[in-house]
Amino acid sequence: MAAGQLVLIISPKGKRYTHTLEPGKEVHTHDGRILMSEIAEAGFGGIVRSHLGHPYRILKPTVYELIKGVKRQTQIMYPKEIGYVLLKLGIQPGCRVIETGTGSAGLTLALATYVGDTGKVYTYERREEFYKLAQKNLARVGLSHRVEQHLADIEETGFQQTGADALFLDVREPQDCLRHIPPAVTPGATCGFLLPTTNQVSELLRGLEQGPFTEIEALEILVRRYKCVPDRLRP
Amino acid sequence: MAAGQLVLIISPKGKRYTHTLEPGKEVHTHDGRILMSEIAEAGFGGIVRSHLGHPYRILKPTVYELIKGVKRQTQIMYPKEIGYVLLKLGIQPGCRVIETGTGSAGLTLALATYVGDTGKVYTYERREEFYKLAQKNLARVGLSHRVEQHLADIEETGFQQTGADALFLDVREPQDCLRHIPPAVTPGATCGFLLPTTNQVSELLRGLEQGPFTEIEALEILVRRYKCVPDRLRP
Amino acid sequence: MAAGQLVLIISPKGKRYTHTLEPGKEVHTHDGRILMSEIAEAGFGGIVRSHLGHPYRILKPTVYELIKGVKRQTQIMYPKEIGYVLLKLGIQPGCRVIETGTGSAGLTLALATYVGDTGKVYTYERREEFYKLAQKNLARVGLSHRVEQHLADIEETGFQQTGADALFLDVREPQDCLRHIPPAVTPGATCGFLLPTTNQVSELLRGLEQGPFTEIEALEILVRRYKCVPDRLRP
Amino acid sequence: MAAGQLVLIISPKGKRYTHTLEPGKEVHTHDGRILMSEIAEAGFGGIVRSHLGHPYRILKPTVYELIKGVKRQTQIMYPKEIGYVLLKLGIQPGCRVIETGTGSAGLTLALATYVGDTGKVYTYERREEFYKLAQKNLARVGLSHRVEQHLADIEETGFQQTGADALFLDVREPQDCLRHIPPAVTPGATCGFLLPTTNQVSELLRGLEQGPFTEIEALEILVRRYKCVPDRLRP
Repeated sequence: MAAGQLVLIISPKGKRYTHTLEPGKEVHTHDGRILMSEIAEAGFGGIVRSHLGHPYRILKPTVYELIKGVKRQTQIMYPKEIGYVLLKLGIQPGCRVIETGTGSAGLTLALATYVGDTGKVYTYERREEFYKLAQKNLARVGLSHRVEQHLADIEETGFQQTGADALFLDVREPQDCLRHIPPAVTPGATCGFLLPTTNQVSELLRGLEQGPFTEIEALEILVRRYKCVPDRLRP
Repeated sequence: MAAGQLVLIISPKGKRYTHTLEPGKEVHTHDGRILMSEIAEAGFGGIVRSHLGHPYRILKPTVYELIKGVKRQTQIMYPKEIGYVLLKLGIQPGCRVIETGTGSAGLTLALATYVGDTGKVYTYERREEFYKLAQKNLARVGLSHRVEQHLADIEETGFQQTGADALFLDVREPQDCLRHIPPAVTPGATCGFLLPTTNQVSELLRGLEQGPFTEIEALEILVRRYKCVPDRLRP
Repeated sequence: MAAGQLVLIISPKGKRYTHTLEPGKEVHTHDGRILMSEIAEAGFGGIVRSHLGHPYRILKPTVYELIKGVKRQTQIMYPKEIGYVLLKLGIQPGCRVIETGTGSAGLTLALATYVGDTGKVYTYERREEFYKLAQKNLARVGLSHRVEQHLADIEETGFQQTGADALFLDVREPQDCLRHIPPAVTPGATCGFLLPTTNQVSELLRGLEQGPFTEIEALEILVRRYKCVPDRLRP
Repeated sequence: MAAGQLVLIISPKGKRYTHTLEPGKEVHTHDGRILMSEIAEAGFGGIVRSHLGHPYRILKPTVYELIKGVKRQTQIMYPKEIGYVLLKLGIQPGCRVIETGTGSAGLTLALATYVGDTGKVYTYERREEFYKLAQKNLARVGLSHRVEQHLADIEETGFQQTGADALFLDVREPQDCLRHIPPAVTPGATCGFLLPTTNQVSELLRGLEQGPFTEIEALEILVRRYKCVPDRLRP
């Protein structure tokens, strides 16, 4: 594996570390140090041992892992929601997508992955510490070039783009920002919102009813995990 | 809009039709006929009327709508599952993905969308009628060039590819096909499975335990929809 | 079986009829008539045939079946909620419980069952047609003697009882009735509410915060049914 | 309040203690000691202070609280399931119910509450330590007189009762005990089962298909709790 490659290192207990390969460096884990050179040699699917002898598995990080591994200071969206948003908003290679607020850049990272090198993500954040955190998080996974970060409060400034294919609002009071959406997107574009409380959903629906929005739906996504024992399978 | 463009036409009652624009042709709906030329003129976000006067909304179909609109003779995967699969398997532009069985090509269509023009989907189906149905469904949405369709029973033949980035099995008895996975994928690649019954999940888990599979998880995804009335919001 | 006994009759397709045994009468079903005398002879667990030859199963109706079989003109509470309410409110033999509104008397019926002959249910309804419907529904299952029905709008009149062990409000705007609760119940009594929309829950919580209510919780109960095929068990 | 009365004492942080009033004794909590005499004086709905000054609320324990407060060495059934079982099995004042295994007596306690003084619960347990624990738990809440405890392995011995109104099996392999059910219950009686894994459900369904069981259903019950903030209501 070449320098700069992202690798996922999984401890015997399932603890996960995402790192960029840098020859000559070390990874510090709870079970001891691991040489980057050994990781590069083992390759994806391989096993390396920490200097204390603990076996670590090397995998190529999926988008799922990258999202989960984001350094966060904010609540992030989860893969169960992000996956649905991708399909529902029609995000795909070549898309131009607007998003706000950036937060820790978990969704930004996913959007940047799926628009590919021919697409673009325009993301807005009004708090400087998150703007910088997102910058680091995007650089860390090598996706900065697909993202245009704005430090601004869109409720006041609106968006600088026009004709975007899709738009996602993750702000506290999205109803106050709705007027900025039509000028920024292509006619008939899909928009998404993430809101934790039912009060916010009611407020947003009230705002959306003013138009020009149609085909409105509200839903939540639940994941039920099962214990993976074949003879004692259970939720 | 140009000929060949996919359009989504939504009736006043929410019924949805996906069509390819063909100048001079008509769309037949439950509420009367609509001229393709008028659709092209109205553009995305516009409104056209059937010859009986009913207003239809014109939108650009998202991946979500394309999946929902697939002509089906088989049970299809739903967007709630497909979205999660995309993230979890790390599907992204440039990926080479193997899938079986093709069925009505609902998942194939989503995979083909997200691997982009630089990626490839290899899909296997052992029943000729589904092979042909999938062929039509993929052609209809303009994604045939990103998909390599195989008419084969992979339990017997295995896969013809090597080094794939991800693999998805949607067959009745996946445990009988597990031996074909390692030769087909790159070390450390992610694999997914879709199974409707708990008995099948148990059988699969038994098979996976034989190795070389690790990091196994089982889950189901539920969607709760809400009635979108701001003052009477409810599931 | 004696005259006056409640019986549950189940058709081959699972359709359910609850009836009171009356010697010499007949039950009319979609598959023909059944003689009450034959039902009495067959007894619980037995099978009788309609005059067209269709086999019907005779069972003793459980509370669950009685609730489900209530003639309704209103939305009723479901057994999943009622069961939880019984435990949470501490309904048990000998209890004195207040309830409003009566509606179709689904919950009333359950409460009357569980307070037994030593307890009492006081139920209020402001609409006369529901008052009468409830009267019929309670008489039909032989529980009238445990219930005291009031035709009144409690928001205006309040409750006539004092020292009740528990109280349940199933009205549109329970926050406007909260002031009537403390005089009607014993100190520390438990109260329940049923509300379909999240807006109503917010309004109620606002009201409850004014006191003297404590130990407040809000929840919803979901039932997931499984298809009962042993080799293809699935939700 | 009189000696022997069960009281629920709730700490400022919501920690719950169930106790029997014994004049002259003290309750030991994490926040200091409370005099039983002060509890008796405060009464239900009242407040007492520990010797360190912390305010504790006094309530009458509901069935829900008693179940939750059971001293347990086994997994217990939860109120969400127990409530449903009561309605579905038609448990009511005067019923004779058989149950096995007793375990920590959580369900036994609920059944004993609802059959009242005119009913009876027959409960079987094969492990002596649970038999004794259940004995203590039932005595503690004053319900021993409604319960007949058996120390026996019903798979071998079967049940000693006949004509029971309902029966509940909470054992690992209920299919091996099914033959003992028909002799023990009245014709058409309802039976319930609790099983944590899907494999067990499949095995049981296979057993039930051998007859004479009909009207079979399988389900699970989920509770979604909400955070009770009126302006930020959320699951």
